[in-house]
Amino acid sequence: MKIYLAGPDVFLPDAIDIGRRKVDLCRHYGVTGLYPLDNTVDLAAPDASLQIFRGNEAMMNQADAIIANLTPFRGPGADAGTVYELGYMAGRGKNCFAYCNDPALYVDRVRRLTDVTAQHGRLVDADGLTVEDFGHTDNLMMIHALELHGAPMVLPRQTPADRWHDLAGFEDCLRLATSTKLQA
Amino acid sequence: MKIYLAGPDVFLPDAIDIGRRKVDLCRHYGVTGLYPLDNTVDLAAPDASLQIFRGNEAMMNQADAIIANLTPFRGPGADAGTVYELGYMAGRGKNCFAYCNDPALYVDRVRRLTDVTAQHGRLVDADGLTVEDFGHTDNLMMIHALELHGAPMVLPRQTPADRWHDLAGFEDCLRLATSTKLQA
Repeated sequence: MKIYLAGPDVFLPDAIDIGRRKVDLCRHYGVTGLYPLDNTVDLAAPDASLQIFRGNEAMMNQADAIIANLTPFRGPGADAGTVYELGYMAGRGKNCFAYCNDPALYVDRVRRLTDVTAQHGRLVDADGLTVEDFGHTDNLMMIHALELHGAPMVLPRQTPADRWHDLAGFEDCLRLATSTKLQA
Repeated sequence: MKIYLAGPDVFLPDAIDIGRRKVDLCRHYGVTGLYPLDNTVDLAAPDASLQIFRGNEAMMNQADAIIANLTPFRGPGADAGTVYELGYMAGRGKNCFAYCNDPALYVDRVRRLTDVTAQHGRLVDADGLTVEDFGHTDNLMMIHALELHGAPMVLPRQTPADRWHDLAGFEDCLRLATSTKLQA
């Protein structure tokens, strides 16, 4: 089984090292981890970002499943590139798994950034835009996509000390992805 | 042709009205617009958010294309639910179109929220996480997905006075989606 390893991990200062740790954990569970930075890209080329895209898409097309890191990135929710990839894999009928190293509800995440008030029976932010209030940690599309196309999002009881390097949630996803029920 | 109308428009105070305007524009161009809020959902039901998900997924499955509103939402990039849907449609091989009512580069959008500095040849935010600097307006996965699965993202010369209600970019997407070349 090949698993695409999606996440803002690629933006960390030690992006290559965290990828190596994830790929090693995959091997430990008997599967092959496909990490975006394992693609060879000439970052000095004028079409570097297109090369990255094509490499990631090719990896996703050959993978049987995705494990996405949905830890909030530069805002109340997950990294956009990762979310795109989760959608892409769901669309292709692949098994979808994800973890998030922040268990806070979406509405509380938004409250960290802006005022949230009740207006006409709905919660809104300072711009008057509705804040989803279904008791989820992120946008409902991801939450239910995971439930229906793989397994519910893995969340810690509390945010780990190092939310960018703690791989307990990732390993839980690996266990889910390699469970006999899903492999059968 | 049926087109799924994705975007954080559903979070606007006048979400139903903007959806009606989009569906009317679709009709003007000879296509059927599928707007999430046209699904019947009992918002008081305990599984309301799952009903929304199932309704949206069913609409996407019957649509031939998507027009996504990728205007920055609660952060430097597009709304997560919309990004998920764009990925889902790309994964299913549908035609993908999008507009964004903010032409600012991603790096400049991040600068509005946090310091961006150069470190070891890459741009990083205040948390030390890489800021994509490929001259794009948002994450490269969406940018190139649109180029390769539909048409490049539609951007205004400058942010319109009302970025949540200006539909010029949406109409440009409709023209692209209904061009004879793509319909053939």
